[in-house]
Amino acid sequence: MPRYFDKELESLKTLLIKMGSLAEEAVHFAVNGLIENDLSLAKKVLDGEDRINKLEIEIDNAIVDILALQQPVAIDLRLILAAQKINNDLERIGDHAVNIAESVITIQSCDDRQQLIFIPKMAKLAEQMLRDALDSFIHNDPQLSKSVLEHDDTIDELNRNVFQRSVENMKSNQRTIEMGMHLTRISRNIERIADLATNIAEEVIFIAQARIVKHNAQDIK
Amino acid sequence: MPRYFDKELESLKTLLIKMGSLAEEAVHFAVNGLIENDLSLAKKVLDGEDRINKLEIEIDNAIVDILALQQPVAIDLRLILAAQKINNDLERIGDHAVNIAESVITIQSCDDRQQLIFIPKMAKLAEQMLRDALDSFIHNDPQLSKSVLEHDDTIDELNRNVFQRSVENMKSNQRTIEMGMHLTRISRNIERIADLATNIAEEVIFIAQARIVKHNAQDIK
Repeated sequence: MPRYFDKELESLKTLLIKMGSLAEEAVHFAVNGLIENDLSLAKKVLDGEDRINKLEIEIDNAIVDILALQQPVAIDLRLILAAQKINNDLERIGDHAVNIAESVITIQSCDDRQQLIFIPKMAKLAEQMLRDALDSFIHNDPQLSKSVLEHDDTIDELNRNVFQRSVENMKSNQRTIEMGMHLTRISRNIERIADLATNIAEEVIFIAQARIVKHNAQDIK
Repeated sequence: MPRYFDKELESLKTLLIKMGSLAEEAVHFAVNGLIENDLSLAKKVLDGEDRINKLEIEIDNAIVDILALQQPVAIDLRLILAAQKINNDLERIGDHAVNIAESVITIQSCDDRQQLIFIPKMAKLAEQMLRDALDSFIHNDPQLSKSVLEHDDTIDELNRNVFQRSVENMKSNQRTIEMGMHLTRISRNIERIADLATNIAEEVIFIAQARIVKHNAQDIK
């Protein structure tokens, strides 16, 4: 393998790590904006969206260039194909952070701010899943990726609980309806972030082990 | 370009068209299951999920094989990279159809079946967007793709309307709360399907014109 190509792959990985940091930061600001009811954090997420979108395109173009100019095989090819998916997943995570931030701004003026139910717990777990998925990519550590997959059911369960609890709250107090609708929206966006972190973890396993674990997570030991 | 390679590309395209048909069928069954309150259609969607997931993996593997065995450049390389994204988008569309079908099954026994508000209109538009996006891929017709992008704002507007109208209904009649929550969930899933159809249309333009139109849809003339 020529040194030049190694350098190209390293650059691609560096861009993806940067993309990962931006997505992670967006989620962190959105979640903390919610928990601390801090509008300035929510606004930071909206301001950062454009940067994430531009970086996604830059990475996609880098992938086309690498594949067009080199003939990568085996592990390198898998890395590049997974990079395209991870890039896409991270951009979507950024979108979900924006959705959360928008809800934070909308509900900020609600005078019926009820309990956030299980949302802070869910958000912290989703943040950890994303951090672990990105770390597993950076350090090429499929064991860490597998630990991410294990949390996905917990997130789904928490999301269902938020939905049910919100319905109960709305039924018992009509004034919580608007807030409840936004809380379930936020909960669902957190669930999607966790889901995309799971996708990234699956891609890292794919890179390392050359097998597609998607839809077969239960088979991984 | 060797004939063998053309054949490989054709096979990949055929697999993607099959994947597109399955996703389109899933959306159609889910939406009609809702409008006609027909549980058997919703169940068909759940039964078909596994087939879509397996085909996604088959297509991903075909992409790795083509890239590993050939050295595609220019238009062919763009087609293959776009194929990976379209494949992923179609699998997600299948997931959203499953979410809708699950809600159809849950609300079927609700005795407070209120009006479906703007949902049938939204669903028909999303179905058309998906059909046009797939047709534009099959016939390599970027003009048709562009028409898909134009509908995205209408879908977003309808989704917001469903949200607002549901909140109003819930406030005026507490018995509609559960139904309203599911209707907004369905509306959101339809909005996501339209969004993914838009992604597919963007990929077709990318294949044809070698430029990434994502996040810059307004620049397309």
